[in-house]
Amino acid sequence: MIYMDNAATSWPKPESVWEAVLRVGKTIGANPGRAGHQMAIDAGRAIYNARVAIARLFQFPDPLRVVFTLNATDALNLAIFGLLKPGDHVLTTRLEHNAVARPLYILQHRGVEVTYLDGDDYGRIDPDEIKQNRKANTKALILNHASNVTGAMQDLENIVKAAKALDLLVIVDAAQTAGVFPIQMEAWGIDLLAFPGHKGLLGPQGTGGLCIMPGIDLEPLRYGGTGSQSESELQPLCLPDRFESGTPNTPGIAGLAAGVEYIHQFGQAKIEAHERMLTQQLMEGLAGLKGVRLMGPPIGESRAAVLSLTVDGMEVAEMGFLLDKAFNIAVRTGLHCAPLAHRRSGTFTTGTVRLSPGIFSTETEIKEVVAAITQLVNEANTI
Amino acid sequence: MIYMDNAATSWPKPESVWEAVLRVGKTIGANPGRAGHQMAIDAGRAIYNARVAIARLFQFPDPLRVVFTLNATDALNLAIFGLLKPGDHVLTTRLEHNAVARPLYILQHRGVEVTYLDGDDYGRIDPDEIKQNRKANTKALILNHASNVTGAMQDLENIVKAAKALDLLVIVDAAQTAGVFPIQMEAWGIDLLAFPGHKGLLGPQGTGGLCIMPGIDLEPLRYGGTGSQSESELQPLCLPDRFESGTPNTPGIAGLAAGVEYIHQFGQAKIEAHERMLTQQLMEGLAGLKGVRLMGPPIGESRAAVLSLTVDGMEVAEMGFLLDKAFNIAVRTGLHCAPLAHRRSGTFTTGTVRLSPGIFSTETEIKEVVAAITQLVNEANTI
Repeated sequence: MIYMDNAATSWPKPESVWEAVLRVGKTIGANPGRAGHQMAIDAGRAIYNARVAIARLFQFPDPLRVVFTLNATDALNLAIFGLLKPGDHVLTTRLEHNAVARPLYILQHRGVEVTYLDGDDYGRIDPDEIKQNRKANTKALILNHASNVTGAMQDLENIVKAAKALDLLVIVDAAQTAGVFPIQMEAWGIDLLAFPGHKGLLGPQGTGGLCIMPGIDLEPLRYGGTGSQSESELQPLCLPDRFESGTPNTPGIAGLAAGVEYIHQFGQAKIEAHERMLTQQLMEGLAGLKGVRLMGPPIGESRAAVLSLTVDGMEVAEMGFLLDKAFNIAVRTGLHCAPLAHRRSGTFTTGTVRLSPGIFSTETEIKEVVAAITQLVNEANTI
Repeated sequence: MIYMDNAATSWPKPESVWEAVLRVGKTIGANPGRAGHQMAIDAGRAIYNARVAIARLFQFPDPLRVVFTLNATDALNLAIFGLLKPGDHVLTTRLEHNAVARPLYILQHRGVEVTYLDGDDYGRIDPDEIKQNRKANTKALILNHASNVTGAMQDLENIVKAAKALDLLVIVDAAQTAGVFPIQMEAWGIDLLAFPGHKGLLGPQGTGGLCIMPGIDLEPLRYGGTGSQSESELQPLCLPDRFESGTPNTPGIAGLAAGVEYIHQFGQAKIEAHERMLTQQLMEGLAGLKGVRLMGPPIGESRAAVLSLTVDGMEVAEMGFLLDKAFNIAVRTGLHCAPLAHRRSGTFTTGTVRLSPGIFSTETEIKEVVAAITQLVNEANTI
């Protein structure tokens, strides 16, 4: 099987990820931070090691402010509902995933004002647009690093710096870039960074997190047992406990740490170059086909390893079905939980076929994918 | 190592649990419900199988209304914040974990009225107390099935039936009983049942859930990508999607299904009998020791496999430390995230040493635990 759905979750994972899951689950499977016995302490240490690995990856200053969540959506909900209050104004883009768009939609009905920045043809915003749309009550800018529909990448460093110069808080959804593209939280000025553990970071599903810069406080999304300050009716103020109620996914988080370690050993720059090369190969192979429309920025401009396309006269669901059944190629079809991005690219009613190679994808696989799509397109054109 | 901390998380897990985690993670590691390709469909089916297993265990009518969460705390937060609105009145007990007490404390400040039922000497409430404290605006009763501090069990069937007769909704926290004691959601009338996946259900950490009876709607705790109705700004209404935003912990949930299957094969009644026998052995072995105070109901009354104790003249932390270092026995010490229960048992300032045997604990281990505590107590008494 050729797996071209890494934008949904990366597969396969490095062998070391599953080894870590098993080692922690089997040998130090206690509940971390809730008892003083050795196995509980070891479990707590495994999680702390993951915090350190994440902090290092994102150049983030305080491992104890790396908060683990169920997934990136959970982290984004914590950031958005935790930060914004009625009367606040927030800037965002038209490329956001529903994990951002739906919480903002709810908050609009609770008195938060939202401005959607248009950006260029591909939804990429620029510093001037932020400046023009900033108001007295503008509290934050919320944007993803790359679109999960078109792969379009924001010029994050310059956007964040511009927003910080205007005293805005910046929330970044790194779902499509974490682990592949460099992100420097402190140097650029990102206040809140949400990441999935199971995509570019190569960890197991059931992991994700939020890095919360020192000085930022949020309302918790969940209240409950934290293993600290058990005597209080109040949620503890100290991090990470304040935002990690209930038993964490200890084996999954240990697997995530192994995934990040794999990235470190492999070299993030090599991963980025490998995925760029494969994406370009895909685009070059498909660009000339009759009736094929490739979404997002043209070849040569920076993009995440995500390519959405449509074929004139062919339903995307049919194409996905044929790729799966006749060619054993796994892609995602339809709307990719980002309706505004589809409106932007004119695929709101049709959806797209989305191809997303990953770290373990090969040039040979891309050739086969191009050959399969070519064959399907030629057949469609001759009918 | 003798593991006596199963009330925090069960350990070890059945081998089949880790086999399921690996099988799903390695061979069908796609993102469930978000694509039409075969591996995504297989991943979705693995999760559906877990829903069916949970529904069967709790005699719950609709597997699609079994919602998976990060842990039981997450599930309880969804139930409590999702159900209660300003102006509502809710009944609860003094035995609740912070996963219930802290959300209720927050809601009290948002205009929800909370009455704490006193119950008997061990905090166990009875139907009359519900009737006496019910008011015109009483919406729900929230209680755990057994205390994680004292092991005291509520007479759940009769309490739920009484509450239903008064038209109250009933939310049950089954953290200490799920997988060990029978729970009949439909027959008894439980509306919302929150369960951890990693305690009595023998699944991995990072799993838990909420069973939501047909006809009950809740406000979601998280909004975002669901793989369904991607075009809408609104969270879908259909379950489980409405409450499962973001990528689920697919391998963990598959492990949970294997844990429930293990319980089914082993026989829940046998697990209950085994844990009852071990708990009684523990209580009989410790009851006569000078200065030892056992919390909770006396021998012979029903209780979960949780035993909290204090020793006159000995700090609980010191005792836990010595049990760990000198005897290699893992226990939990301190306050167990349930301050009201500690107030009830007079251990609010001191905390307790908590012993919680599990399905894989043995009589030999209990003998060693009793011998170790006897030695420590005798040494303390001779100083």
